[in-house]
Amino acid sequence: MIDSGLLIVVSGPSGAGKGTICDALREHFPNIHYSISMTTRQPRPGEEDGVNYYFTDNGRFEELLKEDAFLEHAKVYDHYYGTPKEYVYQMLRQGNHVMLEIDIQGAMQVKEKYPQGVFIYIVPPSKAVLEERLRGRHTDSDEVIAARLAKARNELEWIDKYDYVIVNDDLGEAIQKAAAVLKAEECRVMRNANCIEETKQAYQ
Amino acid sequence: MIDSGLLIVVSGPSGAGKGTICDALREHFPNIHYSISMTTRQPRPGEEDGVNYYFTDNGRFEELLKEDAFLEHAKVYDHYYGTPKEYVYQMLRQGNHVMLEIDIQGAMQVKEKYPQGVFIYIVPPSKAVLEERLRGRHTDSDEVIAARLAKARNELEWIDKYDYVIVNDDLGEAIQKAAAVLKAEECRVMRNANCIEETKQAYQ
Repeated sequence: MIDSGLLIVVSGPSGAGKGTICDALREHFPNIHYSISMTTRQPRPGEEDGVNYYFTDNGRFEELLKEDAFLEHAKVYDHYYGTPKEYVYQMLRQGNHVMLEIDIQGAMQVKEKYPQGVFIYIVPPSKAVLEERLRGRHTDSDEVIAARLAKARNELEWIDKYDYVIVNDDLGEAIQKAAAVLKAEECRVMRNANCIEETKQAYQ
Repeated sequence: MIDSGLLIVVSGPSGAGKGTICDALREHFPNIHYSISMTTRQPRPGEEDGVNYYFTDNGRFEELLKEDAFLEHAKVYDHYYGTPKEYVYQMLRQGNHVMLEIDIQGAMQVKEKYPQGVFIYIVPPSKAVLEERLRGRHTDSDEVIAARLAKARNELEWIDKYDYVIVNDDLGEAIQKAAAVLKAEECRVMRNANCIEETKQAYQ
Protein backbone atom coordinates (compact mmCIF):
# COMPACT_ATOMS: atom_id res chain seq x y z
CA MET A 1 0.00 0.00 0.00
CA ILE A 2 1.01 3.57 -0.73
CA ASP A 3 2.54 5.34 2.34
CA SER A 4 -0.36 7.77 2.61
CA GLY A 5 -3.44 8.56 0.57
CA LEU A 6 -3.31 11.39 -1.96
CA LEU A 7 -4.57 14.85 -1.12
CA ILE A 8 -6.06 15.84 -4.46
CA VAL A 9 -6.71 19.53 -5.00
CA VAL A 10 -8.83 20.44 -7.99
CA SER A 11 -9.33 24.01 -9.16
CA GLY A 12 -10.59 25.69 -12.28
CA PRO A 13 -13.12 28.27 -13.38
CA SER A 14 -16.80 27.85 -12.77
CA GLY A 15 -18.03 25.89 -15.78
CA ALA A 16 -14.79 23.93 -16.25
CA GLY A 17 -16.49 20.66 -15.42
CA LYS A 18 -14.67 20.12 -12.10
CA GLY A 19 -17.69 18.67 -10.34
CA THR A 20 -18.43 16.15 -13.08
CA ILE A 21 -14.80 15.11 -13.30
CA CYS A 22 -14.45 14.77 -9.52
CA ASP A 23 -17.60 12.66 -9.30
CA ALA A 24 -16.33 10.42 -12.10
CA LEU A 25 -13.00 10.02 -10.29
CA ARG A 26 -14.84 8.77 -7.25
CA GLU A 27 -16.37 6.04 -9.42
CA HIS A 28 -12.87 5.01 -10.55
CA PHE A 29 -11.32 5.27 -7.09
CA PRO A 30 -13.72 4.16 -4.35
CA ASN A 31 -11.19 5.23 -1.72
CA ILE A 32 -11.57 8.91 -2.60
CA HIS A 33 -13.34 10.94 0.06
CA TYR A 34 -14.50 14.50 -0.27
CA SER A 35 -13.26 16.61 2.58
CA ILE A 36 -15.95 18.19 4.75
CA SER A 37 -15.68 21.93 5.22
CA MET A 38 -16.41 23.80 8.40
CA THR A 39 -18.53 26.92 8.22
CA THR A 40 -20.08 29.50 10.48
CA ARG A 41 -23.06 30.12 8.24
CA GLN A 42 -26.44 28.71 9.17
CA PRO A 43 -27.38 25.24 7.90
CA ARG A 44 -29.79 25.34 4.99
CA PRO A 45 -32.81 23.05 4.99
CA GLY A 46 -31.68 19.46 4.54
CA GLU A 47 -28.01 20.12 5.37
CA GLU A 48 -26.61 17.86 8.06
CA ASP A 49 -23.80 18.63 10.46
CA GLY A 50 -20.81 16.36 9.74
CA VAL A 51 -22.19 15.41 6.34
CA ASN A 52 -22.50 18.56 4.21
CA TYR A 53 -20.52 20.76 6.57
CA TYR A 54 -19.36 20.97 10.11
CA PHE A 55 -21.40 23.86 11.45
CA THR A 56 -19.91 26.03 14.16
CA ASP A 57 -19.87 29.63 15.40
CA ASN A 58 -17.40 32.44 14.84
CA GLY A 59 -15.85 32.15 18.30
CA ARG A 60 -15.02 28.48 17.90
CA PHE A 61 -13.83 28.97 14.32
CA GLU A 62 -11.43 31.72 15.36
CA GLU A 63 -10.14 29.54 18.17
CA LEU A 64 -9.42 26.76 15.69
CA LEU A 65 -7.73 29.28 13.38
CA LYS A 66 -5.35 30.18 16.20
CA GLU A 67 -4.61 26.48 16.67
CA ASP A 68 -3.68 26.23 12.97
CA ALA A 69 -6.41 23.62 12.60
CA PHE A 70 -7.24 24.40 8.96
CA LEU A 71 -5.60 23.42 5.71
CA GLU A 72 -7.18 26.52 4.19
CA HIS A 73 -9.89 28.97 5.08
CA ALA A 74 -11.63 32.08 3.84
CA LYS A 75 -14.07 34.63 5.13
CA VAL A 76 -16.88 35.27 2.68
CA TYR A 77 -19.00 38.23 3.73
CA ASP A 78 -19.57 37.52 7.42
CA HIS A 79 -19.02 33.80 7.37
CA TYR A 80 -15.95 31.63 7.70
CA TYR A 81 -15.35 28.55 5.59
CA GLY A 82 -12.42 26.23 6.13
CA THR A 83 -11.04 22.73 5.66
CA PRO A 84 -10.19 21.17 9.02
CA LYS A 85 -6.88 19.34 8.90
CA GLU A 86 -7.83 16.60 11.31
CA TYR A 87 -10.37 14.73 9.18
CA VAL A 88 -8.22 15.06 6.07
CA TYR A 89 -5.04 13.80 7.74
CA GLN A 90 -6.86 10.92 9.37
CA MET A 91 -8.25 9.80 6.00
CA LEU A 92 -4.82 10.11 4.36
CA ARG A 93 -3.13 8.11 7.11
CA GLN A 94 -5.68 5.33 6.56
CA GLY A 95 -4.61 5.21 2.90
CA ASN A 96 -7.69 6.96 1.59
CA HIS A 97 -7.46 9.77 -0.94
CA VAL A 98 -9.09 13.09 -0.09
CA MET A 99 -10.36 15.41 -2.78
CA LEU A 100 -10.74 19.15 -2.36
CA GLU A 101 -12.54 21.11 -5.03
CA ILE A 102 -11.45 24.63 -4.11
CA ASP A 103 -10.53 27.98 -5.56
CA ILE A 104 -7.00 29.14 -6.24
CA GLN A 105 -6.63 31.08 -2.99
CA GLY A 106 -7.59 27.97 -1.02
CA ALA A 107 -5.39 25.74 -3.16
CA MET A 108 -2.37 27.96 -2.55
CA GLN A 109 -2.95 27.78 1.20
CA VAL A 110 -3.12 23.99 0.99
CA LYS A 111 0.06 23.92 -1.08
CA GLU A 112 1.86 25.84 1.64
CA LYS A 113 0.79 23.38 4.32
CA TYR A 114 0.81 20.19 2.29
CA PRO A 115 3.10 20.54 -0.73
CA GLN A 116 2.99 16.81 -1.43
CA GLY A 117 -0.65 17.19 -2.49
CA VAL A 118 -1.61 16.62 -6.11
CA PHE A 119 -2.65 19.95 -7.61
CA ILE A 120 -4.78 19.74 -10.73
CA TYR A 121 -6.10 22.66 -12.74
CA ILE A 122 -9.02 22.05 -15.07
CA VAL A 123 -9.84 24.57 -17.75
CA PRO A 124 -12.13 24.68 -20.78
CA PRO A 125 -10.17 25.10 -24.03
CA SER A 126 -11.30 28.66 -24.76
CA LYS A 127 -13.35 31.58 -23.62
CA ALA A 128 -15.93 30.76 -26.31
CA VAL A 129 -16.38 27.22 -25.01
CA LEU A 130 -16.59 28.38 -21.40
CA GLU A 131 -19.13 31.03 -22.30
CA GLU A 132 -21.24 28.48 -24.16
CA ARG A 133 -21.21 26.17 -21.12
CA LEU A 134 -22.10 28.96 -18.71
CA ARG A 135 -24.96 30.11 -20.98
CA GLY A 136 -26.15 26.51 -21.33
CA ARG A 137 -26.77 26.33 -17.59
CA HIS A 138 -29.37 29.11 -17.78
CA THR A 139 -28.52 30.10 -14.22
CA ASP A 140 -26.34 33.19 -14.60
CA SER A 141 -27.16 36.68 -15.85
CA ASP A 142 -25.08 38.28 -18.62
CA GLU A 143 -23.22 40.32 -16.01
CA VAL A 144 -22.37 37.26 -13.93
CA ILE A 145 -21.21 35.41 -17.05
CA ALA A 146 -19.02 38.35 -18.10
CA ALA A 147 -17.49 38.45 -14.63
CA ARG A 148 -16.85 34.70 -14.64
CA LEU A 149 -15.13 34.90 -18.03
CA ALA A 150 -12.89 37.76 -16.92
CA LYS A 151 -12.04 35.87 -13.74
CA ALA A 152 -11.26 32.71 -15.71
CA ARG A 153 -8.83 34.67 -17.87
CA ASN A 154 -7.04 36.21 -14.90
CA GLU A 155 -6.83 32.94 -13.04
CA LEU A 156 -4.95 31.28 -15.91
CA GLU A 157 -1.87 33.06 -14.56
CA TRP A 158 -1.95 30.68 -11.61
CA ILE A 159 -1.75 27.44 -13.59
CA ASP A 160 2.02 27.39 -13.12
CA LYS A 161 1.51 26.77 -9.41
CA TYR A 162 -0.31 23.52 -10.14
CA ASP A 163 1.22 20.15 -10.98
CA TYR A 164 -1.13 19.15 -13.76
CA VAL A 165 -3.29 20.96 -16.27
CA ILE A 166 -6.24 19.27 -17.93
CA VAL A 167 -7.84 21.14 -20.80
CA ASN A 168 -11.41 19.91 -20.67
CA ASP A 169 -12.27 19.80 -24.34
CA ASP A 170 -13.77 16.33 -24.36
CA LEU A 171 -15.23 15.32 -21.00
CA GLY A 172 -14.53 11.59 -21.32
CA GLU A 173 -10.92 12.28 -22.19
CA ALA A 174 -10.55 14.77 -19.34
CA ILE A 175 -11.81 12.13 -16.91
CA GLN A 176 -9.33 9.60 -18.30
CA LYS A 177 -6.52 12.09 -17.85
CA ALA A 178 -7.51 12.92 -14.29
CA ALA A 179 -7.76 9.21 -13.45
CA ALA A 180 -4.32 8.64 -15.00
CA VAL A 181 -2.88 11.41 -12.83
CA LEU A 182 -4.10 9.68 -9.67
CA LYS A 183 -2.98 6.23 -10.81
CA ALA A 184 0.45 7.61 -11.71
CA GLU A 185 0.81 9.51 -8.45
CA GLU A 186 0.08 6.27 -6.61
CA CYS A 187 3.19 4.84 -8.32
CA ARG A 188 5.54 7.69 -7.43
CA VAL A 189 8.67 6.46 -5.70
CA MET A 190 8.47 9.25 -3.11
CA ARG A 191 5.03 7.97 -2.05
CA ASN A 192 6.05 4.34 -1.77
CA ALA A 193 8.82 4.09 0.79
CA ASN A 194 6.85 1.37 2.63
CA CYS A 195 6.15 -0.62 -0.49
CA ILE A 196 9.81 -0.40 -1.56
CA GLU A 197 10.93 -1.51 1.89
CA GLU A 198 8.53 -4.49 1.74
CA THR A 199 9.83 -5.40 -1.69
CA LYS A 200 13.40 -5.30 -0.39
CA GLN A 201 12.36 -7.68 2.39
CA ALA A 202 10.76 -9.96 -0.19
CA TYR A 203 14.13 -10.21 -1.93
CA GLN A 204 16.06 -11.39 1.13
CA MET B 1 0.46 19.65 -28.07
CA ILE B 2 2.90 18.97 -25.25
CA ASP B 3 6.10 21.09 -25.49
CA SER B 4 8.27 18.10 -26.19
CA GLY B 5 7.79 14.34 -26.28
CA LEU B 6 8.62 12.29 -23.21
CA LEU B 7 11.93 10.54 -22.81
CA ILE B 8 10.82 7.38 -21.03
CA VAL B 9 13.50 5.39 -19.28
CA VAL B 10 12.53 1.91 -18.12
CA SER B 11 14.76 -0.23 -15.93
CA GLY B 12 14.30 -3.30 -13.81
CA PRO B 13 15.80 -6.73 -13.31
CA SER B 14 15.91 -9.31 -16.07
CA GLY B 15 12.56 -11.12 -15.76
CA ALA B 16 10.63 -8.07 -14.52
CA GLY B 17 8.51 -7.97 -17.66
CA LYS B 18 9.97 -4.71 -19.01
CA GLY B 19 9.91 -5.83 -22.63
CA THR B 20 6.27 -6.94 -22.49
CA ILE B 21 5.22 -3.74 -20.73
CA CYS B 22 7.14 -1.52 -23.15
CA ASP B 23 5.63 -3.28 -26.15
CA ALA B 24 2.15 -2.85 -24.67
CA LEU B 25 2.82 0.84 -24.09
CA ARG B 26 3.63 1.23 -27.76
CA GLU B 27 0.17 -0.14 -28.55
CA HIS B 28 -1.39 2.50 -26.27
CA PHE B 29 0.81 5.34 -27.49
CA PRO B 30 1.55 5.05 -31.20
CA ASN B 31 3.91 8.04 -30.93
CA ILE B 32 6.38 6.09 -28.81
CA HIS B 33 9.62 5.29 -30.59
CA TYR B 34 12.35 3.02 -29.34
CA SER B 35 15.71 4.71 -29.46
CA ILE B 36 18.29 3.04 -31.67
CA SER B 37 21.60 2.26 -30.01
CA MET B 38 24.97 2.59 -31.62
CA THR B 39 27.45 -0.24 -31.22
CA THR B 40 30.89 -1.25 -32.34
CA ARG B 41 30.16 -4.95 -32.35
CA GLN B 42 29.63 -6.78 -35.62
CA PRO B 43 26.09 -7.01 -37.02
CA ARG B 44 24.52 -10.43 -36.50
CA PRO B 45 22.71 -12.12 -39.36
CA GLY B 46 19.51 -10.24 -40.13
CA GLU B 47 20.46 -7.08 -38.22
CA GLU B 48 20.19 -3.90 -40.25
CA ASP B 49 22.14 -0.69 -39.79
CA GLY B 50 19.83 2.10 -38.67
CA VAL B 51 17.10 -0.35 -37.70
CA ASN B 52 18.40 -2.66 -34.97
CA TYR B 53 21.54 -0.65 -34.30
CA TYR B 54 23.75 1.96 -35.83
CA PHE B 55 26.92 0.00 -36.49
CA THR B 56 30.23 1.81 -36.35
CA ASP B 57 33.87 1.24 -35.38
CA ASN B 58 35.78 2.05 -32.20
CA GLY B 59 37.54 5.06 -33.68
CA ARG B 60 34.31 6.76 -34.71
CA PHE B 61 32.57 5.85 -31.45
CA GLU B 62 35.38 7.38 -29.40
CA GLU B 63 35.25 10.51 -31.54
CA LEU B 64 31.52 10.80 -30.84
CA LEU B 65 32.17 10.24 -27.14
CA LYS B 66 34.52 13.22 -27.16
CA GLU B 67 31.79 15.28 -28.80
CA ASP B 68 29.38 14.32 -25.97
CA ALA B 69 27.10 12.79 -28.58
CA PHE B 70 25.62 10.11 -26.32
CA LEU B 71 22.90 10.18 -23.71
CA GLU B 72 24.55 7.16 -22.16
CA HIS B 73 27.12 4.58 -23.13
CA ALA B 74 28.93 1.55 -21.83
CA LYS B 75 31.82 -0.64 -22.86
CA VAL B 76 30.95 -4.32 -22.60
CA TYR B 77 34.03 -6.50 -23.10
CA ASP B 78 35.62 -4.94 -26.18
CA HIS B 79 32.55 -3.30 -27.63
CA TYR B 80 30.93 0.04 -27.12
CA TYR B 81 27.19 0.52 -26.87
CA GLY B 82 25.55 3.93 -26.62
CA THR B 83 22.40 5.98 -27.20
CA PRO B 84 23.10 8.80 -29.65
CA LYS B 85 21.48 12.04 -28.52
CA GLU B 86 20.69 13.34 -31.97
CA TYR B 87 17.99 10.86 -32.97
CA VAL B 88 16.38 11.00 -29.52
CA TYR B 89 16.26 14.79 -29.35
CA GLN B 90 14.94 15.05 -32.89
CA MET B 91 12.08 12.66 -32.05
CA LEU B 92 11.28 14.55 -28.81
CA ARG B 93 11.26 17.91 -30.60
CA GLN B 94 8.72 16.48 -33.05
CA GLY B 95 6.45 15.62 -30.11
CA ASN B 96 7.18 11.91 -30.21
CA HIS B 97 7.98 9.96 -27.10
CA VAL B 98 11.20 7.96 -26.98
CA MET B 99 11.53 4.86 -24.85
CA LEU B 100 14.82 3.52 -23.54
CA GLU B 101 14.88 0.13 -21.90
CA ILE B 102 18.25 0.30 -20.17
CA ASP B 103 20.10 -0.76 -17.06
CA ILE B 104 20.57 1.40 -13.99
CA GLN B 105 24.03 2.63 -14.95
CA GLY B 106 22.69 3.82 -18.29
CA ALA B 107 19.58 5.32 -16.71
CA MET B 108 21.68 7.32 -14.25
CA GLN B 109 23.75 8.72 -17.12
CA VAL B 110 20.56 9.74 -18.92
CA LYS B 111 19.22 11.34 -15.75
CA GLU B 112 22.34 13.46 -15.52
CA LYS B 113 21.93 14.72 -19.09
CA TYR B 114 18.14 14.80 -19.31
CA PRO B 115 16.62 15.08 -15.81
CA GLN B 116 13.19 15.89 -17.23
CA GLY B 117 12.93 12.30 -18.49
CA VAL B 118 10.38 9.95 -16.96
CA PHE B 119 12.23 7.29 -15.00
CA ILE B 120 10.28 4.11 -14.30
CA TYR B 121 11.50 1.10 -12.36
CA ILE B 122 9.70 -2.20 -12.84
CA VAL B 123 10.19 -4.98 -10.35
CA PRO B 124 8.55 -8.34 -9.66
CA PRO B 125 6.95 -8.46 -6.20
CA SER B 126 9.43 -10.90 -4.66
CA LYS B 127 12.52 -12.97 -5.20
CA ALA B 128 10.33 -16.09 -5.36
CA VAL B 129 8.22 -14.67 -8.19
CA LEU B 130 11.26 -13.46 -10.09
CA GLU B 131 12.95 -16.85 -9.70
CA GLU B 132 9.84 -18.61 -10.98
CA ARG B 133 9.73 -16.35 -14.04
CA LEU B 134 13.41 -16.82 -14.78
CA ARG B 135 13.09 -20.62 -14.45
CA GLY B 136 9.99 -20.57 -16.64
CA ARG B 137 12.03 -19.19 -19.53
CA HIS B 138 14.23 -22.30 -19.59
CA THR B 139 17.11 -20.20 -20.92
CA ASP B 140 19.33 -19.66 -17.90
CA SER B 141 21.45 -22.06 -15.89
CA ASP B 142 21.10 -22.26 -12.10
CA GLU B 143 24.24 -20.16 -11.73
CA VAL B 144 22.95 -17.46 -14.05
CA ILE B 145 19.59 -17.42 -12.24
CA ALA B 146 21.33 -17.13 -8.85
CA ALA B 147 23.42 -14.24 -10.18
CA ARG B 148 20.35 -12.49 -11.59
CA LEU B 149 18.50 -12.80 -8.27
CA ALA B 150 21.43 -11.39 -6.31
CA LYS B 151 21.74 -8.55 -8.79
CA ALA B 152 18.00 -7.82 -8.58
CA ARG B 153 18.28 -7.55 -4.81
CA ASN B 154 21.24 -5.17 -4.94
CA GLU B 155 19.67 -3.01 -7.60
CA LEU B 156 16.61 -2.34 -5.44
CA GLU B 157 18.78 0.23 -3.66
CA TRP B 158 18.58 2.38 -6.79
CA ILE B 159 14.79 2.65 -6.95
CA ASP B 160 14.95 5.96 -5.07
CA LYS B 161 16.63 7.53 -8.08
CA TYR B 162 13.61 6.78 -10.25
CA ASP B 163 10.34 8.72 -10.44
CA TYR B 164 7.96 5.79 -10.50
CA VAL B 165 8.00 2.23 -9.23
CA ILE B 166 5.73 -0.41 -10.69
CA VAL B 167 5.59 -3.71 -8.87
CA ASN B 168 4.73 -6.14 -11.63
CA ASP B 169 2.50 -8.58 -9.79
CA ASP B 170 -0.29 -8.65 -12.34
CA LEU B 171 0.89 -7.88 -15.88
CA GLY B 172 -2.33 -6.23 -17.05
CA GLU B 173 -2.36 -3.95 -14.05
CA ALA B 174 1.32 -3.11 -14.46
CA ILE B 175 0.63 -2.08 -18.07
CA GLN B 176 -2.28 0.10 -16.95
CA LYS B 177 -0.05 1.78 -14.38
CA ALA B 178 2.72 2.42 -16.88
CA ALA B 179 0.21 3.85 -19.36
CA ALA B 180 -1.23 6.08 -16.62
CA VAL B 181 2.26 7.37 -15.85
CA LEU B 182 2.73 8.48 -19.45
CA LYS B 183 -0.76 9.98 -19.72
CA ALA B 184 -0.23 11.87 -16.47
CA GLU B 185 3.21 13.11 -17.47
CA GLU B 186 1.67 14.48 -20.67
CA CYS B 187 -0.55 16.64 -18.42
CA ARG B 188 2.23 18.05 -16.26
CA VAL B 189 2.18 21.82 -16.14
CA MET B 190 5.96 22.00 -16.60
CA ARG B 191 5.63 20.14 -19.92
CA ASN B 192 2.80 22.29 -21.25
CA ALA B 193 4.06 25.86 -21.43
CA ASN B 194 2.98 26.04 -25.08
CA CYS B 195 -0.46 24.62 -24.42
CA ILE B 196 -0.98 26.99 -21.49
CA GLU B 197 0.12 29.94 -23.62
CA GLU B 198 -2.32 28.91 -26.36
CA THR B 199 -5.10 28.60 -23.80
CA LYS B 200 -4.34 32.09 -22.52
CA GLN B 201 -4.61 33.37 -26.09
CA ALA B 202 -7.93 31.59 -26.44
CA TYR B 203 -9.21 33.57 -23.45
CA GLN B 204 -8.41 36.98 -24.89
